[in-house]
Amino acid sequence: MKFLKTVWLGLPLAIAAFSASATELNNKDTFWPDDAQLVISISMQFEATAQDKQDPGPFPAQEAGFPDTIAPSWYQYGMNEGIPRLLNLWDKHNIKVTSHMVGRAVELNPELAKEVVRRGHEASGHGQTWTPQYSMTPEEERASYIKSADIIEKVTGQRPVGFNAFWMRHSPNTLAILKELGFIYHIDDLSRDEPSYTPVGDSSIVVVPYTFRNNDIVRYTGSTAMTGKAYLQELKDEFDVLYKEGTKRRRMMSISAHDRLAGSPARVKALDDFIAYAKQHKAVKFMRKDDIAKWVLKKNNVPINAPRNFNN
Amino acid sequence: MKFLKTVWLGLPLAIAAFSASATELNNKDTFWPDDAQLVISISMQFEATAQDKQDPGPFPAQEAGFPDTIAPSWYQYGMNEGIPRLLNLWDKHNIKVTSHMVGRAVELNPELAKEVVRRGHEASGHGQTWTPQYSMTPEEERASYIKSADIIEKVTGQRPVGFNAFWMRHSPNTLAILKELGFIYHIDDLSRDEPSYTPVGDSSIVVVPYTFRNNDIVRYTGSTAMTGKAYLQELKDEFDVLYKEGTKRRRMMSISAHDRLAGSPARVKALDDFIAYAKQHKAVKFMRKDDIAKWVLKKNNVPINAPRNFNN
Amino acid sequence: MKFLKTVWLGLPLAIAAFSASATELNNKDTFWPDDAQLVISISMQFEATAQDKQDPGPFPAQEAGFPDTIAPSWYQYGMNEGIPRLLNLWDKHNIKVTSHMVGRAVELNPELAKEVVRRGHEASGHGQTWTPQYSMTPEEERASYIKSADIIEKVTGQRPVGFNAFWMRHSPNTLAILKELGFIYHIDDLSRDEPSYTPVGDSSIVVVPYTFRNNDIVRYTGSTAMTGKAYLQELKDEFDVLYKEGTKRRRMMSISAHDRLAGSPARVKALDDFIAYAKQHKAVKFMRKDDIAKWVLKKNNVPINAPRNFNN
Amino acid sequence: MKFLKTVWLGLPLAIAAFSASATELNNKDTFWPDDAQLVISISMQFEATAQDKQDPGPFPAQEAGFPDTIAPSWYQYGMNEGIPRLLNLWDKHNIKVTSHMVGRAVELNPELAKEVVRRGHEASGHGQTWTPQYSMTPEEERASYIKSADIIEKVTGQRPVGFNAFWMRHSPNTLAILKELGFIYHIDDLSRDEPSYTPVGDSSIVVVPYTFRNNDIVRYTGSTAMTGKAYLQELKDEFDVLYKEGTKRRRMMSISAHDRLAGSPARVKALDDFIAYAKQHKAVKFMRKDDIAKWVLKKNNVPINAPRNFNN
Repeated sequence: MKFLKTVWLGLPLAIAAFSASATELNNKDTFWPDDAQLVISISMQFEATAQDKQDPGPFPAQEAGFPDTIAPSWYQYGMNEGIPRLLNLWDKHNIKVTSHMVGRAVELNPELAKEVVRRGHEASGHGQTWTPQYSMTPEEERASYIKSADIIEKVTGQRPVGFNAFWMRHSPNTLAILKELGFIYHIDDLSRDEPSYTPVGDSSIVVVPYTFRNNDIVRYTGSTAMTGKAYLQELKDEFDVLYKEGTKRRRMMSISAHDRLAGSPARVKALDDFIAYAKQHKAVKFMRKDDIAKWVLKKNNVPINAPRNFNN
Repeated sequence: MKFLKTVWLGLPLAIAAFSASATELNNKDTFWPDDAQLVISISMQFEATAQDKQDPGPFPAQEAGFPDTIAPSWYQYGMNEGIPRLLNLWDKHNIKVTSHMVGRAVELNPELAKEVVRRGHEASGHGQTWTPQYSMTPEEERASYIKSADIIEKVTGQRPVGFNAFWMRHSPNTLAILKELGFIYHIDDLSRDEPSYTPVGDSSIVVVPYTFRNNDIVRYTGSTAMTGKAYLQELKDEFDVLYKEGTKRRRMMSISAHDRLAGSPARVKALDDFIAYAKQHKAVKFMRKDDIAKWVLKKNNVPINAPRNFNN
Repeated sequence: MKFLKTVWLGLPLAIAAFSASATELNNKDTFWPDDAQLVISISMQFEATAQDKQDPGPFPAQEAGFPDTIAPSWYQYGMNEGIPRLLNLWDKHNIKVTSHMVGRAVELNPELAKEVVRRGHEASGHGQTWTPQYSMTPEEERASYIKSADIIEKVTGQRPVGFNAFWMRHSPNTLAILKELGFIYHIDDLSRDEPSYTPVGDSSIVVVPYTFRNNDIVRYTGSTAMTGKAYLQELKDEFDVLYKEGTKRRRMMSISAHDRLAGSPARVKALDDFIAYAKQHKAVKFMRKDDIAKWVLKKNNVPINAPRNFNN
Repeated sequence: MKFLKTVWLGLPLAIAAFSASATELNNKDTFWPDDAQLVISISMQFEATAQDKQDPGPFPAQEAGFPDTIAPSWYQYGMNEGIPRLLNLWDKHNIKVTSHMVGRAVELNPELAKEVVRRGHEASGHGQTWTPQYSMTPEEERASYIKSADIIEKVTGQRPVGFNAFWMRHSPNTLAILKELGFIYHIDDLSRDEPSYTPVGDSSIVVVPYTFRNNDIVRYTGSTAMTGKAYLQELKDEFDVLYKEGTKRRRMMSISAHDRLAGSPARVKALDDFIAYAKQHKAVKFMRKDDIAKWVLKKNNVPINAPRNFNN
């Protein structure tokens, strides 16, 4: 496997530093399977009901020491309405997505988790609970990843090979532990609109990038939530640009859908309309992240990121 | 009364766990009265002027120890302009809504409260004051519910059978006290787009669900308030999805209108336009929440939620 | 002068409590001068450059003890560009507005203040500095109102008869002092879409109401500022509703324009387009607030608000 | 060089104080090179990867003492995708911009910095690090400006003559030091829609004004980020007004584009569409800020701002 530090500056690219990627630009047929011009990958978080008991959701915090009755019902919506509605949407368009499953949420909603996989979607790792990973000890991390992978496999029949951390934050050990456990990709890097590698010791792990832009947890937050129609417009605009760039290099569009957020009616309509819009274009391919990672592992023109720096 | 834990995954539904609801999907004619395809229920909060004296409304907090003169006038708008304008809107479209009345606001505005009921709307419970219920003692809660029901009945001639808590938060005793006092439903559960049951000891109480999405207090907040037009679009988009789902199962759309918020001109226009839009569709029915609760109590295909957990 | 506590509930209004206002509804020709169906009154704040030195404007606060160089330049825009651009806009449409002038800002920008009045606009009171009035002693308040009125009169030739407090907040003495000094109206009450009276001891003072909705300082705040186009839509929607209501009772629309906010190009365009839109409708009248107050003082169908309560 | 304190009030301008600028209004041909009616100047910040290690970017802050892995990847996007995509956009429209380069970011991304200048854009100063300048000692400031200018010159071959401070805030010594070092302009004044002068001791320095309105760091902030389409509309609306004003006086429109913000696909599309819109109008000129400063220095009708006041 050969790593290139790719910098892309379009044409004209006269200077030496860009010659490697310039070469790549003439090698379009290797960007994606089926000569796709753009790959879109949707993440569907399966995590509600596993949230911390103190989590106030979008509500003002209440006085400590009293159990909250409304936030749990708001999260429960993700399992009652959100995931089922989203599953029907993916079926309508015949696309497969990646479901980032919190182990505890799978335990609490086993039939629904099983149904996600039965319909052809990827069960991917998302921790055992909503506890941040960055401050865990290595032992805690390893135990958490093993336990959640075991639960997901037991319930759905599929062992996860991908990972998404709580708020995307890793400890210095996260990636080494994931590699040791057989994971082949993570999504917790926002630096590119295409897959890449994160160095891990002498080796590396695939990044199938996540998004902070096309992300319902960012754009649909509480009283500042944008409309579904506005979100739809953003998705279309991003699509237009990446799709055009896709004739010259490997481009990927990432979209995030959290059970209780993207799963409400107006927001499902936005996704429905976007998918229909994207499919009107030729050579657009929706892919699960495990399939993307496997494709990427066979290519030798994938950028590698600088090693992470955990020193002060 | 037979309770089903309904999970809805559309077609195809091959696995056993979903057979009960799958059966239900063939039983459309029992979803709603008059074969309605979608029921819309509007909540009109009648609560301004009863707010806490320290409540700053949408204004920056002021130095303690000085009475505020502007927030009270902002709240007063709800009674001077908001409720009257909304009442005229409901009349224009010949629809009946549920008014969640704070007891103290009824005491302070008796003629207006009486007019709400005179025009055919439901007087429902919303506490005696704006004090949160979740931290009350059982005695305080019981006294508050009795007092506010007495006042509402005395002023409007109608005794409330429904309840909405301050910020939707209950104490462990709320529902048992409500049942004891003859209330038949509450709205403080956001987990479904249809009515359901909350278990209360060995019994249960109907949930006619409220909304945090189609809610003016969420979407029209201070300097981040969305436009009326944007809110209208959200309502239309939600309607489109629920209306379509309504051919296969019981679906309900909830909308919230607070006196001083939804009652301003541009926002009344948004509601006006939305109601007109909804009424262009066949088999759409606007219902008061007490009528919904009574209908639901006669049906045996209503989902029951998991018991609430008040342990740590 | 006869005061009516007007409550408006449209038709049908059968019950006795509403008979007074119901009578009023048949008396349309007295609502406004020239048989206007709707009066629009624009407030133009003339206050930048007088802000507190510590005022960070829309910027993140900086470390204490260092003078700030950017916020002053941002405020200065109001005098360099905002007021001149707004003045040209009013001229273009041949409308007169009310300018709420902070005394200190008049001292610092005398030529521009004079020009405002020279073009036919009202010089109204807005305090001597940006110090909140609600926590002043009566002596401080009186001195402040006299000083700022003297300055405004000296510079512009016009002595103010109206008042707007900092963030609309009054002390228990504000209105009595204003009356004593000959002011005839204030704008610091948001409870109605029409003029009314605030009781002051045994007398009263006219309210020409301000707005928190059509207010650039609310809708154009920092990073959550709405677009000019969205603001325009809100204004149009509010106009549509009040204009229609204006056939049955006295209705007034208030719009606020702060020098450094509403005076930027895209926002001036929004106001330009709105005024053009309003003027396409017959019987729409733009009025200064002093003219409104004088009209109102001659009418006997003006609602009076409940006395303010300054007790704890 | 003759300084005029220009106040602009359009026509009619009868009073003496405005005669100087009134004269100017008849002297249109001197406003801009090539008889341009409006000049647009775009700032492209080149600063990501030099941010402070503790900088959380748009993410919720994490527990202290643990390195963050996600914010650095989010910033890295600016260099991987943002700058390259923006560079291609400028090329597509054949316009030259000003790139405000943080010295440390140039050190970390030398090939990309060199490419910016190779394509004809201006390398301008933006500090050596992200440390605020306003609280630096004079020695720290001087050392910082020299070091960053040296680095930029060494890497790109161009020595900066312009300056943009961190959050636009200067110390009392900033401008004198810049002048001493040969800088000819700064952008840290928001008070006008045209160039002006800031007095520095007995001399002055050109202001090529920056923007807080057409600024991606303001309008695209975290969960309240507006859509690209809405931003596009704001730009068009501002353009329309300034373009029209440009027939009567010197007008300039400023737009800001930060690597990791404006460089994402939907936002590049907004800029692309805006530039295309602007270019449909005759006599619109895109200029680098150094070229603007040099033009201004040859004119004698440039307003001078009041001296800054650093006393308490």
